[in-house]
Amino acid sequence: MELDKRFNWTHVEDDIRLYALSLGISFRQIPMDDRRSMHCLPVTAFPTPLHKSAFQLANNLQPSINELIHKISTNHQFLEQTLLKLPDEFVAKLFNIYETVTKEGYAASHQLGIFRSDYMIDEHQNLKQVEVNTISSGLCAMTQQVTKLHRYTLKYYQGLDDDQIDRHIAVNKSLEHTAQSLIDAHLIYSSNASSSAILFVVQEQEANVMDQKMIEWKMKPFVQSFRRSFRELDNGNISLGPNKQLLLTVGNEMKQEISVVYFRAAYSSSCFRYENSWKLRLLIEQSRAIKCPSIQLQLAGFKQFQPLLSDRTIFDRFCCHPNADQLYDTFAKFYTISPSSRDMVAENSSGFVLKSNQEGGGNNVFGEQIVAKLDEMLNQNEKDAHFLM
Amino acid sequence: MELDKRFNWTHVEDDIRLYALSLGISFRQIPMDDRRSMHCLPVTAFPTPLHKSAFQLANNLQPSINELIHKISTNHQFLEQTLLKLPDEFVAKLFNIYETVTKEGYAASHQLGIFRSDYMIDEHQNLKQVEVNTISSGLCAMTQQVTKLHRYTLKYYQGLDDDQIDRHIAVNKSLEHTAQSLIDAHLIYSSNASSSAILFVVQEQEANVMDQKMIEWKMKPFVQSFRRSFRELDNGNISLGPNKQLLLTVGNEMKQEISVVYFRAAYSSSCFRYENSWKLRLLIEQSRAIKCPSIQLQLAGFKQFQPLLSDRTIFDRFCCHPNADQLYDTFAKFYTISPSSRDMVAENSSGFVLKSNQEGGGNNVFGEQIVAKLDEMLNQNEKDAHFLM
Repeated sequence: MELDKRFNWTHVEDDIRLYALSLGISFRQIPMDDRRSMHCLPVTAFPTPLHKSAFQLANNLQPSINELIHKISTNHQFLEQTLLKLPDEFVAKLFNIYETVTKEGYAASHQLGIFRSDYMIDEHQNLKQVEVNTISSGLCAMTQQVTKLHRYTLKYYQGLDDDQIDRHIAVNKSLEHTAQSLIDAHLIYSSNASSSAILFVVQEQEANVMDQKMIEWKMKPFVQSFRRSFRELDNGNISLGPNKQLLLTVGNEMKQEISVVYFRAAYSSSCFRYENSWKLRLLIEQSRAIKCPSIQLQLAGFKQFQPLLSDRTIFDRFCCHPNADQLYDTFAKFYTISPSSRDMVAENSSGFVLKSNQEGGGNNVFGEQIVAKLDEMLNQNEKDAHFLM
Repeated sequence: MELDKRFNWTHVEDDIRLYALSLGISFRQIPMDDRRSMHCLPVTAFPTPLHKSAFQLANNLQPSINELIHKISTNHQFLEQTLLKLPDEFVAKLFNIYETVTKEGYAASHQLGIFRSDYMIDEHQNLKQVEVNTISSGLCAMTQQVTKLHRYTLKYYQGLDDDQIDRHIAVNKSLEHTAQSLIDAHLIYSSNASSSAILFVVQEQEANVMDQKMIEWKMKPFVQSFRRSFRELDNGNISLGPNKQLLLTVGNEMKQEISVVYFRAAYSSSCFRYENSWKLRLLIEQSRAIKCPSIQLQLAGFKQFQPLLSDRTIFDRFCCHPNADQLYDTFAKFYTISPSSRDMVAENSSGFVLKSNQEGGGNNVFGEQIVAKLDEMLNQNEKDAHFLM
């Protein structure tokens, strides 16, 4: 996009960054440098064009994706077959919790899923699903604020009027929707326990604290929430009541009943470094609090299901929506890790990505590094913790 | 104020600080560490109680103060007598600009003053005026945001409902008023030059950039503004047009007519370190752009007038408002710097403050350090650049 000739980029960049910061588009540096400082998230100055039909398709597909995830999460056999064979201690420990609560009988009446389906756009403006996040799906608040930022930059640096902007920028209510879904879950839980509160399980040091805080603030007129790391939950600070209520110790030995547990941690092994984290994760799952997500929804989000679902026969077992074909078309092609797929990558390494099952990004391998990694994995028979697309 | 027993201060402090940051209550560290970072301004978690009558009095007195400043600014003899005797190079240089433009004939049809009168409250809840700022009066945006912050903390950490908060917290529109006054000045200037813009003269590195940016953003639907330091204005980047229009070079040699110059720099000698600053300050004053403030309004704000106005005979020459008595009562007692006032301080140093004429804070001397400073000043005959209260 071309800039109004009166402006120079140094001033514009500073203006946009400060506007972003004034909207709270920010993160905390980790390891934490200073609790009083926030840093501007890297954002584009102007929105990235996306064909309207692609955007609408993503919206239309989401209910089918939600249902697909739900069906996987309730199919014990499929979960077991797919996940138990993984040589991944993190998955094994989660699965262990899942099996324990399944045997005990699941205490919560409901579960809550807040999912984020990530896409890339191919050269024909087709959606290609990268992954579906079923736990700690982040940036709902930040993206809503980025929409405000982009309305500002389009207006004052591109000269668009409000009507033009309305036509070009979709309404973004992701923060409201996230907050409302947590409130809805709280109301389902607490129709007869209105003094209960929502627990955010968070990392001890969290970069995306502003994204999480905005959800808290949005909910605050309706429900109180508490943020706690596993470390803060330990030493008896959470316990189960006589009816498996989850009780959080707040202030001077007061017990606060928890209606909903919202996990913004526990999505990867790095979230479980504190020694008693796994015990606490199990305790939470055993409670009658509504979990966002439940252990089975978390398991259903593992990327290991993606290559399986790219097999149309398997896919059809889990998706019978009228738009099943459209959804299936967004799936990328997957390859099992084998000597033959290794050779295929060696010929055109820039066309592939090697992904880890774990959440949180940063574990992907690209380009020429893939072959070396594949060789290592084939030698050590580690192939099930990664997949190739 | 007592905190709800369910909360602990570590969580509350972090929550309040992040809420403040999400409202833009922030400053940039100077020297600039990183243009992408902002730091939370130090703010109280809860509002500081102030008797309603004191608040209303401050509001009621402001028009009289504005008029008082205006009358001083238009009294050439009083300005000259008071300021020319000061052994202060900064004042002398400002006065030189004032004399030059007075001799040439003042080109602007109007001037704009955005003043901030600072008070302390004595033990009987009486207002005591500390100073009146007539240039670069800061924090109008930040204080408006702090009001929002305090509404939040009162609601969620003190349990007040909206009605109670409305009764206890005054409506704060200081950002709107500041922006509107600049827009009004712009409209007065540009009834026949609607393509003109507002120039913010700023420091090269500015801690309070967010406070200034919020004014810009508030005005943006109505008038474009440009931020420039003296260094950026040099090398022909501002010039006078045939009718003394102030012309700012923007982009690729375009000349942008300036309607209003808003000084958020030029308030102390440290703002004039760049070599051609003084020439540029004169050029701006010679233009027909409306200055906020004009050179004479800046001069009228020097603290040197405070001790003079605490003489009721002089005060009455400049203030004949019905509330003159009330205004006069807010003035602190001033003492000229002399051997006898030095001895008075030596007996009770905690009851005094030694102030510098210059703006920007940080130049005050307190407690036992006053006597040493007074001795130094009496020896070097520097007494006119400071005063004792």
